[in-house]
Amino acid sequence: MRIDKEQLYQADRKWRLNLVNSLSGIKPANLIGTRSKAGLNNLAIFSSVVHLGSNPAQLGFVLRPQGEVPRHTFENILETGFYTINHIQEEWIRKAHYTSAKLDREESEFERMQIEKEFIEDFHAPFVKESPVKIGMKFNAEIALPNGCSFIVGDVLSVIFPDEALNDLGQLDLVKIEGVGISGLNSYYSLEKLNTFPYVRTHEIPDFK
Amino acid sequence: MRIDKEQLYQADRKWRLNLVNSLSGIKPANLIGTRSKAGLNNLAIFSSVVHLGSNPAQLGFVLRPQGEVPRHTFENILETGFYTINHIQEEWIRKAHYTSAKLDREESEFERMQIEKEFIEDFHAPFVKESPVKIGMKFNAEIALPNGCSFIVGDVLSVIFPDEALNDLGQLDLVKIEGVGISGLNSYYSLEKLNTFPYVRTHEIPDFK
Repeated sequence: MRIDKEQLYQADRKWRLNLVNSLSGIKPANLIGTRSKAGLNNLAIFSSVVHLGSNPAQLGFVLRPQGEVPRHTFENILETGFYTINHIQEEWIRKAHYTSAKLDREESEFERMQIEKEFIEDFHAPFVKESPVKIGMKFNAEIALPNGCSFIVGDVLSVIFPDEALNDLGQLDLVKIEGVGISGLNSYYSLEKLNTFPYVRTHEIPDFK
Repeated sequence: MRIDKEQLYQADRKWRLNLVNSLSGIKPANLIGTRSKAGLNNLAIFSSVVHLGSNPAQLGFVLRPQGEVPRHTFENILETGFYTINHIQEEWIRKAHYTSAKLDREESEFERMQIEKEFIEDFHAPFVKESPVKIGMKFNAEIALPNGCSFIVGDVLSVIFPDEALNDLGQLDLVKIEGVGISGLNSYYSLEKLNTFPYVRTHEIPDFK
């Protein structure tokens, strides 16, 4: 099937939303944890976390426009400067999915969805206790995108993961941590390791002919 | 294991590169196809394509800093305004991975890695013939990131996919298209559907207690 621009914008809104959300392929499944100055804890699912660089170690994520959705996550990040990124696991995708609910700022998704929070040392924002990979982040920049969204850039301050999930090369095994991916708005996929290929050096390219 | 900022930057460069590239979770596996004004065709693997919005339909990706890597993809996008995003499939991940080689601009990855290109109607940039999901893109903006990378924003002009991979709701089935994900720099994962949950309405939140 071929859909051109005109057909895309004439289509039903929800159909377009689902299709366009599927286009990039599989997406990472993360929960972002924050805590307001007043001590309100917030947790929200994001499928747009993206690697930006390793030196400095930075991750980004996409934030919907102000007004379109409550932005408690971002309000807390702006108030305090800190947030956590926590990998979602197969066993509790349902709970994690429901953190996309529009709760009042006073109500914590940790309580409502029964996801246990964990404070580690003196880090201001709450981590997700069950999460196999927990990342402590510091806000770096909010960058305006042409469509009214923001791209939020943060610096990695700390990383916590199970010893057995990391190999000697520094690679995390997403099967060992029971990691998942998201397609579109609400479909969850499990992962199975296929293969690892070497870093490509120009003089080591195999002959594909 | 807990790694703090100091330990991260004191660690071996390759180890840090692998770890930080793994932190965001599973990443989409796409090939970006471009064609220079002079008619040179380029193909490169990207794991940073991210959904930005559905109205307008926009996708972004992260581009390494100028000078660090050859940026033939971006040179061609700037010259012509057009590019394609093509999903990678399980069967040919090895070929796709090797498009990360630093070839001269004159040499096409389509030829060297034996990946068949396809021109569709009058669209300037080449698509990947084998790819189940092919997206025609128009360059919209280059946005500078704090670490010297660029975030490239583009508008979706057309989408091509197999009829049987799309359901009535507009959702693409990533198993039917044999989609894959990437972890870190070079590990490939296959996908298995777990579940689909409804769009979350506040009055329909299940009781998790």
